[in-house]
Amino acid sequence: MVVIMKPGTRKEDIDALAAKFESQGLRVGVTNGVGCTILGLVGDTTALDMDKISIEPNVERVMRVQEPYKLANRKFHPEDTVVTVGKAKIGGGNFGVIAGPCSVESEEQIVEVAKAVKASGASMLRGGAFKPRTSPYAFQGMGTPGLDLLVEARQATGLPIVSEIMAPRYVEIFEEKVDVVQIGARNMQNFELLKEVGKMSKPVLLKRGLSNTYEEWIMSAEYIMAGGNENVILCERGIRTFETYTRNTLDVSAIPAIKQMSHLPVIVDPSHAAGMYWMVEPLAMAAVAAGADGLIIEVHNDPAHAKCDGQQSLTPKKFDDLMGKVGTLVNMMGKTLV
Amino acid sequence: MVVIMKPGTRKEDIDALAAKFESQGLRVGVTNGVGCTILGLVGDTTALDMDKISIEPNVERVMRVQEPYKLANRKFHPEDTVVTVGKAKIGGGNFGVIAGPCSVESEEQIVEVAKAVKASGASMLRGGAFKPRTSPYAFQGMGTPGLDLLVEARQATGLPIVSEIMAPRYVEIFEEKVDVVQIGARNMQNFELLKEVGKMSKPVLLKRGLSNTYEEWIMSAEYIMAGGNENVILCERGIRTFETYTRNTLDVSAIPAIKQMSHLPVIVDPSHAAGMYWMVEPLAMAAVAAGADGLIIEVHNDPAHAKCDGQQSLTPKKFDDLMGKVGTLVNMMGKTLV
Amino acid sequence: MVVIMKPGTRKEDIDALAAKFESQGLRVGVTNGVGCTILGLVGDTTALDMDKISIEPNVERVMRVQEPYKLANRKFHPEDTVVTVGKAKIGGGNFGVIAGPCSVESEEQIVEVAKAVKASGASMLRGGAFKPRTSPYAFQGMGTPGLDLLVEARQATGLPIVSEIMAPRYVEIFEEKVDVVQIGARNMQNFELLKEVGKMSKPVLLKRGLSNTYEEWIMSAEYIMAGGNENVILCERGIRTFETYTRNTLDVSAIPAIKQMSHLPVIVDPSHAAGMYWMVEPLAMAAVAAGADGLIIEVHNDPAHAKCDGQQSLTPKKFDDLMGKVGTLVNMMGKTLV
Amino acid sequence: MVVIMKPGTRKEDIDALAAKFESQGLRVGVTNGVGCTILGLVGDTTALDMDKISIEPNVERVMRVQEPYKLANRKFHPEDTVVTVGKAKIGGGNFGVIAGPCSVESEEQIVEVAKAVKASGASMLRGGAFKPRTSPYAFQGMGTPGLDLLVEARQATGLPIVSEIMAPRYVEIFEEKVDVVQIGARNMQNFELLKEVGKMSKPVLLKRGLSNTYEEWIMSAEYIMAGGNENVILCERGIRTFETYTRNTLDVSAIPAIKQMSHLPVIVDPSHAAGMYWMVEPLAMAAVAAGADGLIIEVHNDPAHAKCDGQQSLTPKKFDDLMGKVGTLVNMMGKTLV
Repeated sequence: MVVIMKPGTRKEDIDALAAKFESQGLRVGVTNGVGCTILGLVGDTTALDMDKISIEPNVERVMRVQEPYKLANRKFHPEDTVVTVGKAKIGGGNFGVIAGPCSVESEEQIVEVAKAVKASGASMLRGGAFKPRTSPYAFQGMGTPGLDLLVEARQATGLPIVSEIMAPRYVEIFEEKVDVVQIGARNMQNFELLKEVGKMSKPVLLKRGLSNTYEEWIMSAEYIMAGGNENVILCERGIRTFETYTRNTLDVSAIPAIKQMSHLPVIVDPSHAAGMYWMVEPLAMAAVAAGADGLIIEVHNDPAHAKCDGQQSLTPKKFDDLMGKVGTLVNMMGKTLV
Repeated sequence: MVVIMKPGTRKEDIDALAAKFESQGLRVGVTNGVGCTILGLVGDTTALDMDKISIEPNVERVMRVQEPYKLANRKFHPEDTVVTVGKAKIGGGNFGVIAGPCSVESEEQIVEVAKAVKASGASMLRGGAFKPRTSPYAFQGMGTPGLDLLVEARQATGLPIVSEIMAPRYVEIFEEKVDVVQIGARNMQNFELLKEVGKMSKPVLLKRGLSNTYEEWIMSAEYIMAGGNENVILCERGIRTFETYTRNTLDVSAIPAIKQMSHLPVIVDPSHAAGMYWMVEPLAMAAVAAGADGLIIEVHNDPAHAKCDGQQSLTPKKFDDLMGKVGTLVNMMGKTLV
Repeated sequence: MVVIMKPGTRKEDIDALAAKFESQGLRVGVTNGVGCTILGLVGDTTALDMDKISIEPNVERVMRVQEPYKLANRKFHPEDTVVTVGKAKIGGGNFGVIAGPCSVESEEQIVEVAKAVKASGASMLRGGAFKPRTSPYAFQGMGTPGLDLLVEARQATGLPIVSEIMAPRYVEIFEEKVDVVQIGARNMQNFELLKEVGKMSKPVLLKRGLSNTYEEWIMSAEYIMAGGNENVILCERGIRTFETYTRNTLDVSAIPAIKQMSHLPVIVDPSHAAGMYWMVEPLAMAAVAAGADGLIIEVHNDPAHAKCDGQQSLTPKKFDDLMGKVGTLVNMMGKTLV
Repeated sequence: MVVIMKPGTRKEDIDALAAKFESQGLRVGVTNGVGCTILGLVGDTTALDMDKISIEPNVERVMRVQEPYKLANRKFHPEDTVVTVGKAKIGGGNFGVIAGPCSVESEEQIVEVAKAVKASGASMLRGGAFKPRTSPYAFQGMGTPGLDLLVEARQATGLPIVSEIMAPRYVEIFEEKVDVVQIGARNMQNFELLKEVGKMSKPVLLKRGLSNTYEEWIMSAEYIMAGGNENVILCERGIRTFETYTRNTLDVSAIPAIKQMSHLPVIVDPSHAAGMYWMVEPLAMAAVAAGADGLIIEVHNDPAHAKCDGQQSLTPKKFDDLMGKVGTLVNMMGKTLV
């Protein structure tokens, strides 16, 4: 940590502050200059509260030097984490595609889509049973019966299932029925929920919040990992910017950035980023080329009658075309489509 | 709702779509032109799903004309809502100030601050018992014992208490102990939580999410109101922008905008917007001058040792100075400081 | 400046880099720790190029400690700058209101508006002769004849005139005819233009760019001041965010922030921030309450037939009402409406 | 265009407004409903001023249906524009790579880099002679002598040269010496400059502004095209968002979006988007995979001593590696690296 003193601070006050830091087990280096004194603090600074230091009377500014996350930090865990779910693998050179409808609507629908996406090469099935909707008057998902239909689709195809959890009270049923637990963008900083899924045995797919930084996103993964669950998959799904042509702005730089900062796998959701089916392919391809470890894509057998997000869903036919291109590019990138 | 047809759509396809809308009880007007046909839809369009219409094969674009919210809409409820909590009132010409520490730390601290802010003219006491923190390693609040200390502070001063709820499982204890239930910015779209507080008998203070539009914010109020709880106070607390000098960017335009869109009272949190104690006063004054119905301000008896947010907390002395200025301005605005 | 070394950098490499900085006349303090070494650099660091240091082979990160601006910096010029234009004054306790139409349209229009705003207490007249328009097919302003009409309005009322310059080639004519030269938001980083107006004898009204930080904005003022023209008035006019209800988002925090960082006066343009006439009053009042040194407001005698921005223009009657309220608030703030 | 009337507007007022539009040669369709009347306007609406209509006394809101650009609109020009510069081609299946240093520093430097990038497959040379810098104290470029060095590099290699123009007064010398005229992000809405380059005979590389929408960007291209110069290449270089880890946020969705909206070629600048050399490769690959028509990449023979942007420049060796991968991907995308 670096502490900048206010201009004109007396030497004895600087020394007193330095002594205070030293008494907390830190090494302190002081650089004095005309109108500017810099304190360099080295040691285990995770216990230090920047905000508290910043209100010390003679302190002008505090800057952090080390990352505030440990378990998710690549510095302390250089090799890639590989998340394994049945036969599916994501991370460390393994590329996985999760596909399926926005929401589970009927047995026929989910089984049909599951078979189709499996045939095209998807390694997991997605489907929402509990849906976060901006309007209280919109379809809120089938609830628990939706999870049962996902289980049937898994039985029919062998594909592991991924579904979104919306509150701590569903932890038990998700633990029982689901293979990967999804935290949606709007719940990325629902810390009570993060703590609960941190105690689960199932891997967690953590979507980036609409306006959360890379560091905040990794800190939310750190919440889950601090609870004991180290199988976290990060998912970039577009951020909110001034541009309204697309539903969100896909931040493709997140992929190399996260790989630099963390050992966790990172996948991309081009469907929510674009919000328009015809843009899913170019964004999916961009994600693969930028080094993503996987994709999560909305596929519906009848988008025109989907209960939600039909406008951003691919038909099984379009998904199959896309998988052909994705497969070629994954190989070119030196990865394996699992 | 307005539906724009793709150029070159055949007349029979336009008529078929119009007939479909008419069969749903809507009036449809068709404007034909070279290369552009516009369908105007009038009636109860809340049941219509824009997304579904947008994927009809001949539709180019769909635009909503009417607001998607009803209970919170000023059009259907022209007079201001006044939220009453004991002797405190917010809205409809009544200006209320909620003050207190970021988090409850001890009986001594919360009672001392409560007495001080009451003496300066605050009408409610704030204090966090459950704290949403970006880092799992940061102080997470005292939990339930913190609520008990708030109750003691209420007994000592008569001030109603405001505290943040973080998960549905705390609904019962908040119903029992707290006077106003706060939903934090990060939970503004935690729809499960919104549904639960919608069933409570206590007023709700709903903070705007970091990157949520006015419409999304009102839709979250609509969730609570649809559950039966119509006592919602909206709280602007700064949005996330590219500017990093301030913790957030206070969106003062939200005040007149919300007053135009909704009948609900709107208050401002200058402490979280600024993130620096010396900026609280100008932002608080700006909020009053823009027409806010109240303020929520962080006050701590010893900011240098506060367990969180000390750098944005006012001392009781500075708060007292501010209240003098706020009081004068509230009067000038033709409102009453309750 | 602070330089963070990569973990594992050898002592001799650290020493070599420190020696290099010392040879540039800087003092260097080294703080060593396990896995982290911090170099504190003190002295005249304005000549240092952060980007260059950041690509030194053993450097992980570089952080600036001191501001990159000098002439505009309050640290080196603690007292407020007062910009004087004829009888008008802005800054240092003097509050000035600039009012007039978006664009000059005719002699009758500009003279009528000038007389009206003068009667209501405005101290300067604004009016665009050259208009930056998003579309090449929109009205681009009257050009030089528009400046002549402004001069007539000045003769008729005595009000100094403010108009926007769009390219270096107009410097001569603006120097001759105009009293305050405005740089529009879209030209805030048109560095060629900044250099040219830096050589002018007339004060400059520098609008903040749509997505420029406080620091970038002050750096653009520094460009003008470095050219010899120290009479710069900064003007906040709203920034671009995700919220689309308002034309821009007024960043009211800019007022106290700029006053902390710089000695230059800062005024607010509520008309462009809001984009809707009915929101001008609350935003204008908020600006005054937050400590602004002035306002610039669009007023048109016939908004419904204005050639541009009619929807955000006040009628002379509404402007007169607003000035009554503004005057009362300016007094309450301890300032003088000049 | 669609006009929404205020609730309660009288029939005669609606008819009068409709008649007014009809007198302007438009077709008007009226849809009446309880509390909502919609007017659909069809015909040549480019002459209509939305702002003016929006302040008609009974109008609640106006929404545009048709794009405000014509020359750049794909609807009126379905086939891709191909920009040809000597042997280089960009657009319509032709992929071009422009490479070179941020700024021209010496004959040796620019000729050496030019030879290297040509050997690796670049089709044009970039180099700044006039540099837009945030600080007046930073290196501002060599000016005209820098253009002469670029001409020498062209003579030595045959590569066409691309350089940034910063003011209208340089139009003549750029017309004489340069092959492609670049408009920088900060000048995207410098309309005076756009008008001037619109009269030039040389193709224009138009960078997207830091916070400009797709539509505004295309409107700036429309300015150039309206002046007679239809050879415009659009260049996405990252937008400004809340994320500060990267210099800017590359908006990869801009590629498919622009291709849908316009026939102009679109290329990507991964160097400025990332701001860090190690992120250039993944972003460049993402751009190709998303369908870009080309890349512009900063390459320096000695990044550690570059006068600007060294931290985002590739060495010739790294550029050569990248070109190998780019070439393979360009082929996979069915395009030709020219």
